[in-house]
Amino acid sequence: MPIISIRMAKGRSIEQKRKLVAEVTRAVSETLDLPPDIVSIQLHEFERENWATGGELHVDRFGPGFGKP
Amino acid sequence: MPIISIRMAKGRSIEQKRKLVAEVTRAVSETLDLPPDIVSIQLHEFERENWATGGELHVDRFGPGFGKP
Amino acid sequence: MPIISIRMAKGRSIEQKRKLVAEVTRAVSETLDLPPDIVSIQLHEFERENWATGGELHVDRFGPGFGKP
Amino acid sequence: MPIISIRMAKGRSIEQKRKLVAEVTRAVSETLDLPPDIVSIQLHEFERENWATGGELHVDRFGPGFGKP
Amino acid sequence: MPIISIRMAKGRSIEQKRKLVAEVTRAVSETLDLPPDIVSIQLHEFERENWATGGELHVDRFGPGFGKP
Amino acid sequence: MPIISIRMAKGRSIEQKRKLVAEVTRAVSETLDLPPDIVSIQLHEFERENWATGGELHVDRFGPGFGKP
Repeated sequence: MPIISIRMAKGRSIEQKRKLVAEVTRAVSETLDLPPDIVSIQLHEFERENWATGGELHVDRFGPGFGKP
Repeated sequence: MPIISIRMAKGRSIEQKRKLVAEVTRAVSETLDLPPDIVSIQLHEFERENWATGGELHVDRFGPGFGKP
Repeated sequence: MPIISIRMAKGRSIEQKRKLVAEVTRAVSETLDLPPDIVSIQLHEFERENWATGGELHVDRFGPGFGKP
Repeated sequence: MPIISIRMAKGRSIEQKRKLVAEVTRAVSETLDLPPDIVSIQLHEFERENWATGGELHVDRFGPGFGKP
Repeated sequence: MPIISIRMAKGRSIEQKRKLVAEVTRAVSETLDLPPDIVSIQLHEFERENWATGGELHVDRFGPGFGKP
Repeated sequence: MPIISIRMAKGRSIEQKRKLVAEVTRAVSETLDLPPDIVSIQLHEFERENWATGGELHVDRFGPGFGKP
């Protein structure tokens, strides 16, 4: 039963989330030869104030706003 | 010092959370023969839009609402 | 920069791991419209002695051996 | 479907692990009023060289050996 | 590319977060001899209702409020 | 009680790990104004076969060997 955690910037639409989990489930079940129903995915969404690269918060590095980086 | 992360659907009452952490702490401290005070628990609550099984978001699979699945 | 953790039973071949990370990266980058190079994946492999379902260790529930469940 | 990660020092016996997962599963399923079979537990075992408290590796703070702290 | 997750009580100011990620990035890049730009940090903030020590929720153990414990 | 997970390539010396946890603990305790003794760090070490960037396993992208990327 593979368990997948996806950490990403907050702000994706529910439509994008639907495509994301459908495609990732297909990728995992096909390559590991397992039924899709035992693939579990959790999406962890982060505000830009709570993600840093190179010692800089993304809200400072990329400005306010959602999605993408 | 065991560290326990519990990932679950968002929506449980604080009363349920009290019972959950008390019982899990007791289970861990008794079976590992450790004092309860060094058992640390974090509850990660997920919206149904951020949890998927079988490639489907739980908000689509179980409908809107909280708790349970 | 999405960060993906995949927790799964220990024992897959390196060939399977190559296909897994290639397909999951493609799925994430296409649906989130991001360059593949900023998708990071970590594979967490678990012995059957360290994974339980329904209160039973997988080594007891499925027997010894690798892969699959 | 609650997913529980337990991070602890490496070295517990399989017998202790059996009791741990059985008791934690019972605690979670009873307090959240869910069937035990949808409770999933992963045990992350750490060498004392890979766990630190107060800025000190446990292998230095508690000496070599397994289990307990 | 070290990936750092910092789990802490919710309520720190953005100024404190800036200092935290800058100092942790410097500590990691200097001791592992890596460029700061490949150090990635995610801050997981927890309400006191979702963190327990010794079987007690922090909202009960420390009272309501943010930050610190 | 901040809990810090550091995911990194397997292969650093114990001396490097000592410096890493000492410096990260100092950074966290000074910026969050907390006593060092309540800072907990776990080091998750990954083989290059279990870490991928841009859809490629690091063992293929950087070759075999330990440490660094």
